[in-house]
Amino acid sequence: MRTALCDTLGIDVPIIGFTPSEHVAAAISRAGGLGVLGCVRFNDAEELDKVLGWMDSNTDGKPYGVDVVMPSKIPAEGAPADLTKLIPDEHKTFVERTLTELGVPELPAGTDEREGVLGWLHSVARSHVEVALEHPIRLIANALGSPPVDVIEQAHDHGVPVAALAGKAEHAVRHVDNGVDFVVAQGYEAGGHTGEIASMVLLPEIVDAVGDRAPVLAAGGIGSGRQAAAALALGAAGVWTGSIWLATREYLETMPESEAMQQALVAAGSSDTVRTRIYTGKPARLLKTRWTEAWAQPGAPEPLPMPLQNLLVAPAHNRIHAAADPSVVSMPVGQIVGRLTEIRGVTDIVAELAGGFRTAVDRLVAIKDA
Amino acid sequence: MRTALCDTLGIDVPIIGFTPSEHVAAAISRAGGLGVLGCVRFNDAEELDKVLGWMDSNTDGKPYGVDVVMPSKIPAEGAPADLTKLIPDEHKTFVERTLTELGVPELPAGTDEREGVLGWLHSVARSHVEVALEHPIRLIANALGSPPVDVIEQAHDHGVPVAALAGKAEHAVRHVDNGVDFVVAQGYEAGGHTGEIASMVLLPEIVDAVGDRAPVLAAGGIGSGRQAAAALALGAAGVWTGSIWLATREYLETMPESEAMQQALVAAGSSDTVRTRIYTGKPARLLKTRWTEAWAQPGAPEPLPMPLQNLLVAPAHNRIHAAADPSVVSMPVGQIVGRLTEIRGVTDIVAELAGGFRTAVDRLVAIKDA
Repeated sequence: MRTALCDTLGIDVPIIGFTPSEHVAAAISRAGGLGVLGCVRFNDAEELDKVLGWMDSNTDGKPYGVDVVMPSKIPAEGAPADLTKLIPDEHKTFVERTLTELGVPELPAGTDEREGVLGWLHSVARSHVEVALEHPIRLIANALGSPPVDVIEQAHDHGVPVAALAGKAEHAVRHVDNGVDFVVAQGYEAGGHTGEIASMVLLPEIVDAVGDRAPVLAAGGIGSGRQAAAALALGAAGVWTGSIWLATREYLETMPESEAMQQALVAAGSSDTVRTRIYTGKPARLLKTRWTEAWAQPGAPEPLPMPLQNLLVAPAHNRIHAAADPSVVSMPVGQIVGRLTEIRGVTDIVAELAGGFRTAVDRLVAIKDA
Repeated sequence: MRTALCDTLGIDVPIIGFTPSEHVAAAISRAGGLGVLGCVRFNDAEELDKVLGWMDSNTDGKPYGVDVVMPSKIPAEGAPADLTKLIPDEHKTFVERTLTELGVPELPAGTDEREGVLGWLHSVARSHVEVALEHPIRLIANALGSPPVDVIEQAHDHGVPVAALAGKAEHAVRHVDNGVDFVVAQGYEAGGHTGEIASMVLLPEIVDAVGDRAPVLAAGGIGSGRQAAAALALGAAGVWTGSIWLATREYLETMPESEAMQQALVAAGSSDTVRTRIYTGKPARLLKTRWTEAWAQPGAPEPLPMPLQNLLVAPAHNRIHAAADPSVVSMPVGQIVGRLTEIRGVTDIVAELAGGFRTAVDRLVAIKDA
């Protein structure tokens, strides 16, 4: 299972795995794919630097990448305390009342409450890029489309290619015009930020729109070798996977407190997601839980724009996380969650993606030659 | 390009084409696929009988099927005049005012105004089945899931297999439990009635859920050979296509007044559809036009339940059709509409589906063997 992408990135199989866990990312890279570490959780660039140092020591010299969240237009910026003043009282009251109704306790007194996830702020994302470029990374992906052109040039100056997510063909073309090297075609079924066009339609459309100018990675709905084969049949140069790595043993090594989240994923079916603006202010697919349902009730406030919505819900996420109640999880995940029926090891998943791909191709050959 | 389905249905390629046009259906069958004639437009069973007689004379002895719309639970039933009394004045006023605002003229005086599309009524759908079983049909498909069990038995008594649409794995299993022979997995991206799970996720889920009990046809997002290859990679036994046949020359032979609709389809991109209840009362994907946008405005009434909503909008559809304004079309179509960039012949489309399938498989083999 090799495409030209394997040579470009120095990997064995064209499987890119996005994850906020360094243990998962390193395991994907060691297994022959490209682990891409999500940086948004690092408020502090030094913390990211330390974790990337760990990656350098734990990837057996195999390539890995990072994922930042950087709008091409700079949104509201400033210290969290100043930005928080822009949040209406109605929203704060709703969040407080909802947590009480859902039985989510306050954090114990004295808990060191983290600030909102500052990775959504442009300045913090820039610090992620700067720190990452001091490590031997092989890819910078931006989860919000094209990063600013000077960031693309900065990456290229270090010999690092840039990938950008696109939910429409015209966005993909714009990314490539801006100098982006790989397009990640993010279908409707994907977890996190996503558009309205499903992978089956979006992927060949983006492949045709960018032509020879950039390889396209398929994101959304890919959790098995059959789905990888479908994505490559549609013209993808590789697959971009995310949700499937949440239900791994390695994930718990980074975030041992995530057992409730994993329980919720394993219990969920493919209908148990919702596309909503409550996580970041932009439409993103999340696991459907009592928390997302509360925001869908009549009378719930409209979500705020990015980055205010995440600043609003970040303290709630801390409480939800500590509560460890599978019915009140707040977690981006795609419709592929229906396939997550047990906690597995990263190596097993990579092996199934590659092996299932081969089986699917053999079946297609039989159909072609019949 | 052959699967076991080809032997079961007596066809050359596992391509099923649903269409309300007998000219298109016959051309699909002559080209080696299975043309499936939509019956919902026939208010009068005798008219259907005549058209199926034409099919018998124009399919060169090749197999064809029919598609009816039959809920398993019998909804409101009765003469259109009685049912129309159940429609609130607010809805009638909204439709009238909207048509005026959109510049859709009244029908010329003396026009023989058709009644609502009665095919949505259970009694009329039953008459379609009875008439169809007097012809050498090879498939009855039901666009609303399992038909009533006695209808399935009636078809089986005539040696005719039954197909049913499913948007969730649990529905597919229920259909097979009811005796349905083929499941049509209808992804989110499909035109007409559709659920929320995209084909990339839904299709393998349904394939696994029904196992060896029934072949699964992939519906939603399929308009090219690459997409057919993706669907077969995901485990489908064949593809169920609909939208792509709307932009054919043969369609105009049945409905020469459809040029404005075809212009609108050719101009539309994959983002130009909307999933709404305004066509039938159940969520269905339509071309996004000034008509669908009017129903999405604040203050527009909520659509009525099936079959009342279609009775409400049927006279509006007649006026819209006569107006022949591409910006006010009311037409079910899938996200694949973005691929419809010209009016083609049916034979060309079948040839591209089969040829593109082969090309995609060759590419996959190269990736596998690299």
